[in-house]
Amino acid sequence: MVGCVIEGVPPNLSIDIAEIQVDLSRRAPGQSKVTTDRKETDTLVIETGIFNGKTTGQPIVAFVRNRDIDSSYYDEIKATPRPGHADYPAQIKYGGAQDYRGGGSFSGRMTIGLVIAGSIAKQILATKGIQVNAYTSEIAGISSPQDSFEYVYQNVVRVASPKNEQEIITRIQKAKADGDSVGGVVSCQISGLPVGVGEPIFGSIEGRIALVMFGVPATKGVEFGSGFAAARMMGSQHNDEYYKDGDRVLTRTNNSGGILGGLSNGMPVEFRVAFKPTSSISKKQRTVNMTSGDETELKVRGRHDPCIVPRAVVVVECATAMVILDLMLCGDFLVRI
Amino acid sequence: MVGCVIEGVPPNLSIDIAEIQVDLSRRAPGQSKVTTDRKETDTLVIETGIFNGKTTGQPIVAFVRNRDIDSSYYDEIKATPRPGHADYPAQIKYGGAQDYRGGGSFSGRMTIGLVIAGSIAKQILATKGIQVNAYTSEIAGISSPQDSFEYVYQNVVRVASPKNEQEIITRIQKAKADGDSVGGVVSCQISGLPVGVGEPIFGSIEGRIALVMFGVPATKGVEFGSGFAAARMMGSQHNDEYYKDGDRVLTRTNNSGGILGGLSNGMPVEFRVAFKPTSSISKKQRTVNMTSGDETELKVRGRHDPCIVPRAVVVVECATAMVILDLMLCGDFLVRI
Amino acid sequence: MVGCVIEGVPPNLSIDIAEIQVDLSRRAPGQSKVTTDRKETDTLVIETGIFNGKTTGQPIVAFVRNRDIDSSYYDEIKATPRPGHADYPAQIKYGGAQDYRGGGSFSGRMTIGLVIAGSIAKQILATKGIQVNAYTSEIAGISSPQDSFEYVYQNVVRVASPKNEQEIITRIQKAKADGDSVGGVVSCQISGLPVGVGEPIFGSIEGRIALVMFGVPATKGVEFGSGFAAARMMGSQHNDEYYKDGDRVLTRTNNSGGILGGLSNGMPVEFRVAFKPTSSISKKQRTVNMTSGDETELKVRGRHDPCIVPRAVVVVECATAMVILDLMLCGDFLVRI
Amino acid sequence: MVGCVIEGVPPNLSIDIAEIQVDLSRRAPGQSKVTTDRKETDTLVIETGIFNGKTTGQPIVAFVRNRDIDSSYYDEIKATPRPGHADYPAQIKYGGAQDYRGGGSFSGRMTIGLVIAGSIAKQILATKGIQVNAYTSEIAGISSPQDSFEYVYQNVVRVASPKNEQEIITRIQKAKADGDSVGGVVSCQISGLPVGVGEPIFGSIEGRIALVMFGVPATKGVEFGSGFAAARMMGSQHNDEYYKDGDRVLTRTNNSGGILGGLSNGMPVEFRVAFKPTSSISKKQRTVNMTSGDETELKVRGRHDPCIVPRAVVVVECATAMVILDLMLCGDFLVRI
Repeated sequence: MVGCVIEGVPPNLSIDIAEIQVDLSRRAPGQSKVTTDRKETDTLVIETGIFNGKTTGQPIVAFVRNRDIDSSYYDEIKATPRPGHADYPAQIKYGGAQDYRGGGSFSGRMTIGLVIAGSIAKQILATKGIQVNAYTSEIAGISSPQDSFEYVYQNVVRVASPKNEQEIITRIQKAKADGDSVGGVVSCQISGLPVGVGEPIFGSIEGRIALVMFGVPATKGVEFGSGFAAARMMGSQHNDEYYKDGDRVLTRTNNSGGILGGLSNGMPVEFRVAFKPTSSISKKQRTVNMTSGDETELKVRGRHDPCIVPRAVVVVECATAMVILDLMLCGDFLVRI
Repeated sequence: MVGCVIEGVPPNLSIDIAEIQVDLSRRAPGQSKVTTDRKETDTLVIETGIFNGKTTGQPIVAFVRNRDIDSSYYDEIKATPRPGHADYPAQIKYGGAQDYRGGGSFSGRMTIGLVIAGSIAKQILATKGIQVNAYTSEIAGISSPQDSFEYVYQNVVRVASPKNEQEIITRIQKAKADGDSVGGVVSCQISGLPVGVGEPIFGSIEGRIALVMFGVPATKGVEFGSGFAAARMMGSQHNDEYYKDGDRVLTRTNNSGGILGGLSNGMPVEFRVAFKPTSSISKKQRTVNMTSGDETELKVRGRHDPCIVPRAVVVVECATAMVILDLMLCGDFLVRI
Repeated sequence: MVGCVIEGVPPNLSIDIAEIQVDLSRRAPGQSKVTTDRKETDTLVIETGIFNGKTTGQPIVAFVRNRDIDSSYYDEIKATPRPGHADYPAQIKYGGAQDYRGGGSFSGRMTIGLVIAGSIAKQILATKGIQVNAYTSEIAGISSPQDSFEYVYQNVVRVASPKNEQEIITRIQKAKADGDSVGGVVSCQISGLPVGVGEPIFGSIEGRIALVMFGVPATKGVEFGSGFAAARMMGSQHNDEYYKDGDRVLTRTNNSGGILGGLSNGMPVEFRVAFKPTSSISKKQRTVNMTSGDETELKVRGRHDPCIVPRAVVVVECATAMVILDLMLCGDFLVRI
Repeated sequence: MVGCVIEGVPPNLSIDIAEIQVDLSRRAPGQSKVTTDRKETDTLVIETGIFNGKTTGQPIVAFVRNRDIDSSYYDEIKATPRPGHADYPAQIKYGGAQDYRGGGSFSGRMTIGLVIAGSIAKQILATKGIQVNAYTSEIAGISSPQDSFEYVYQNVVRVASPKNEQEIITRIQKAKADGDSVGGVVSCQISGLPVGVGEPIFGSIEGRIALVMFGVPATKGVEFGSGFAAARMMGSQHNDEYYKDGDRVLTRTNNSGGILGGLSNGMPVEFRVAFKPTSSISKKQRTVNMTSGDETELKVRGRHDPCIVPRAVVVVECATAMVILDLMLCGDFLVRI
C-alpha cells in the first residue's frame, strides 16, 4: 500500500475522484515507448474523507495497492547495493529491517502519495482561480519551449511544444537501446496566486516547494526565476521594475520568479527542477558485496525507465499544488505519505 | 531585537560563547572594502539556556539588539516599494502593520538567528567529528576553487583559494563605484557525517537544507552534487560506483553530493547556493507609488552591500550546521527566529 | 477503515502481532454480559512498518475494517441529534458533510487507533522494564481495590480485585434492563519509569496523558496522585518526604502520583479517569428536529453498552503507553488516528 | 528573562498593552495579605510584534525581567531536594546543569508567559464576543459560589461572591501563621464560543485545555462539566436534553460542560482545576542529601505563598484564552514559553 493521509481539508468541497485517477495514470509506468515496459495499474482507493463526491472535513486516507514484488531480488540488493540508489545508506540506517515489498521507502512509488494529495489540492486551488502547470523543459541537454500547457499530456515526453519533441524521444530511445539513461529538467508555473502567500524565513514559497521537490527521487537541484543565472547578473539588470497595468501592480521582467522575501508578488511563480539520469541501468557497474566485503560487479535487473522526467512532470505539478494549498491554509493541509 | 529560541539542546554540553560572537562578526556589515561602509556591532546576548559555559537543557534564548532605524525611510518604502525587495507583497500581506524597526522580517538581519543557532550547532557537531565549511565559489561569473577552508575567513571575499581573489575584489568594487551590485555562488561541504542521517520524503538532507537556504534573502537556487549539470549526464556516467577503502565503503566519484534517497552515504555532502545581486542599488529604478497609484522613479537611499555573497558564507555554514544537528537529533533541535 | 499511522518507531524491534490482536479484542464490543450484545470482530491489518515480526523503521500503518452501517440511521441522527453525543456540534461544524460510515470521527471506534499504537508501545516499553496497567476502580459509585493486575482481564468488568465485582456486574445489568446506563472510573499505574521523563510546561507527563484521555469519548475528568482531594489537604500532609531504600531515593507517600514538575520522580505514576454514563440509552429523550426546528422526542436505536468503563480499561492502558513512549523518544513516536 | 514568543497572530489587531500589565500584576506576588510578602514588579517588555498599539503579523516577543536570585540557596536545593518540588527529578534529568536564576523551568514564574500570551488572546477573543472568566471556587474545603465575575479581582482571594470570603481568608492566614499551606479549586467559564470549535481526538477542547493546565505548577486534576461526579450518575440523568430558545438550540442542563465529542456545543464551557497546597512550607521536612546519600531534615527558606490559588486564577483565565484562540485559528496561535 502506498498513499497518503491528508488532514485539514475543509468540509463540503467537491472533489472529482476520476481526475485524481487521471493524474495517477500520468505517473504510472508503462504508458509509452519512452518509459519502462513494465505496466502497472495504480488504482485509487479512498477510504475516508471524501463521501458522495465531497470532502467530509475528516482526514482523507487514500492509496493504491502495491504490486507483487519478487523479494529474492531485494535480497540480492541488500548484498550488493546499486550505485545511485539508496540501498547502501538505507541498509546501514535500518540494519536490514526495511520492508522492500512495493519498492520500499526510497522507491519512486512513494511519489504516489504526492500525486494523490496534490491532485486534490489542484482541484481546490482551481476553484480559487489558481493553476499549476508543469512540463518537460529539457531532456539530455535538448530543450523545448513553453508554448502550450494543453499540449503537455498529449505527448509522451510531456513537453509544452512540439519543438524538439521528436529529438527528445529519439534520444531517450537511444539511451534505452544502450541500456543507459538520461536526465532532464521539469519547469513549473503557478498562475493566479494572490499577492502575499508565504511566510518569512521557514515558510518561504521557495523553501517549502524545494523541501518537497528534494523528496522526489532523482532531484538534484531547484531554482526559482533567474535561478543560478542570477549569480552572473547585475542588480540593475536583475531587479524587476514595477509598473501599473490597469489596477494591477506588475513587473515587466520576472527574474524573481514571482516571489520576493518568500512571498508571492502577483507575477507567475516559476521554477525548475533538475533530475539526474535514472540510476537503474542495465550496464555492468562496480559495487561492494556487503556480506563478503569484496568488490564485485552488478547488472541491475528488470525493465527500467530510460528517463524518469516524463513521469516526473505530474509529480512536480501535484506536489507544487499540495505545497501552495498548505501555505494558503496556513499549514493546516497536512500530508503524510 | 533579532535572535533565536532553540529547544531540544541536551544539557551539559560545553559552548564557547566567544566563537558564536566570531561567527556573528563574520556576518556583520562594515567588515571590509567589499561590504557596505555601514558599521554595526552585533553583540550577542544569551538570556537563558547556557550557564557557566554549559547548556542547561532549557531553551536557549539568544539575540542581538537592533540598531536605531530612521523610520521616516520606511514610510517612504511603504509608498514606493523597492524593486527586488519584499516591500510590495509585505505591504499587501500585512496591510501596512509591519514593524520596520531593525529592517523587519524580510531584512538580512533575520539571518542573525540562523548564525547564532548554527554556530552553537557547529560546536556540538565538532564534538562528533562533523565539520561544516562554506566558501565563495563564484562571484559575478568569476570562480575560485576550493583549496583551503582555513583561507576562507582570512580574505574579505571568503574564497577558499587565492586564485581569482583579486579579480573578484576588483569586480565588486567596480559594481560599488557604479552604484550597482553583483551576485555569486556559495558552496558548502559537510564532512565526517555518519552514514544514514536523513529521512525519506519530507526529511531528506537536501530538502531540509534547501528549506532553510531559501529563507536566506537573495537565494535563487540550490543544487546538490552534480546539480543541474546532472540533467545532461548519462546514468552510466552519473552513478557513483562503490569501492572498498580499508573497512570503509566509498564511491570514486561524488555526483550524488554525499546523499542517496535523502540519506547521507558517507561521502562529503556538497551543495551550492546561488545568490542574486543585491537588490538595493543606488541607480534610479522605476516603481509605483502605492498611495497615488502613479508610476514613479526611486533611488534607494543608504550605503549598501555591492555583493552579499561574502557575508552570506557564514550564514550558509551556520544554517547548514543547524539543519544537520536537527536531523541528527531527530527534529528535536527546534529553532525559531 | 479505522486505525493509525505511527512514525518514529526505531527499526529491528520485535513486535508480537498476536498481542495487539488480544488488546483489540479486549476493546471490542460483545465480549460479555455487561457490554453491548452487538458482536464485532476487529481484525488487525498491518500494511507497512512491521515485517517478519520486526519493525522496519518505516511508518507503521495498521487498521481494522469497518462493519457495515445502516446509513438510514445516520440520516435520522442528522435530523434529531442525540443528547450527550457529538451529533449536534458536528452537524454545525461540518455542514452535514461528515461520513458516518463506521460511526464517524466521534465514535468510540476511533479509539481502535489508540489501542493499536499503544499496544505496540506497551511491547516496546516492556523491553525497558516499564509496565502500564489500567483497571476499573469504580462503577456506579461502587469501588473495587487494586489487589492484582493479573485479575483485570480475567473478569468482565476489569476490576483488579474480586471485591465488589459481583455488585458491579449486578448494577450494570440492572441499568441495561432499565434501558439506562452508568459511569465509572478507570485507574492506571505506570511502574518502572526512570526518573526525569517528561518536559516542563507543554510536555508534562500529566498534560500529555490528559490530552489523549480527553480524546477518548465519555471522559469527564483526569486527576493524578491525590487529585481533587489535594485541594483539601495541608502542605505538610501532602508533600511526599524522601527517604533512602538501598541506593534508591523514594518517597513514603505518593500524593504526587509519581510526577513532580511534569517529570517522573521514580515512584509509580498513578492517575484516574472519570467516565460519564454511556450517552446512548433506550429511554425516550427530548431533542430538536434540525430540519423542522421543532422540539421532539427521540428513542436511540440499537444495542448499546450499559457501561463503557470495562471496554475503556484497555484503551486507557494502551493510550498511556503510547504517550509515555512518545515522551521517552522525545516526541518522535507520532501517532495519527 | 521569562516570557513568550507568539506566532500566528493576524496583523492589524488592536492590543492594549496596559491590560496585559494588569493581568501580570494579578499574578505577581506580594499583592495582599494572603500571598507571600515577597514583592515583585513584573514589568512587561514587548520587543516585537506589536507596534503603535497594533499587531504587526510578525511573532510577538514579550517578557519580564527576572529578579535577582540568591544562588547559594539553589546550591542548597541541589544537595537536599525539597519535598513536593521538581528539584529531585530535575537534578537527575539535567545532571545539575539547570539554570536556577529566576527560579528555573519549574518555577511558578514560568506561568508569566501564559499570562502574557493569554492576556493578548483574551483581547482578541473579546472582539468576537467570547469571554473567559476564572475564579476561586474552593480553598481548603471551603467553597464560594459564582455570583459575579466583576467581584473576582476586587477581592484578595479571587472568589466570585462575598459568601465565605472571610472564612477563606482566615483559613489561609492560619495556614501562614502555622508555616503550612492549603490547596483549592479554580473554576473557569468560557461564554460566547461558537458551536463547533475543537477537533476530534487530539484536538478536543478538554484535552487542549488540560494539556496547558497540567503545565501550571501544583495542578493535580482537571474536570469538565459534571466531571468526576459523572461517574456516579445515570445516563438518563446526565444527558443534556435539547430545546429551542428562539432560533438557538440549547440544553437545559450542562453536564457536558459545553463540550460534546471535543467540540463546543454552544453552551458555556465549564471546567475546574484542582491545586495542591503550596509545596514550600516552613515546617521541618525529611529529605535525602544527594551528595552524602544520607537522610536529613530540611526547612525551606524564604517567604512563601500559604495558598497559590488566588494568584493562579488569572493564570487559568489567560491560559484558557490562549488555548481557545489557538483552536479557533486552527493551531496557528503558537506560543513558546
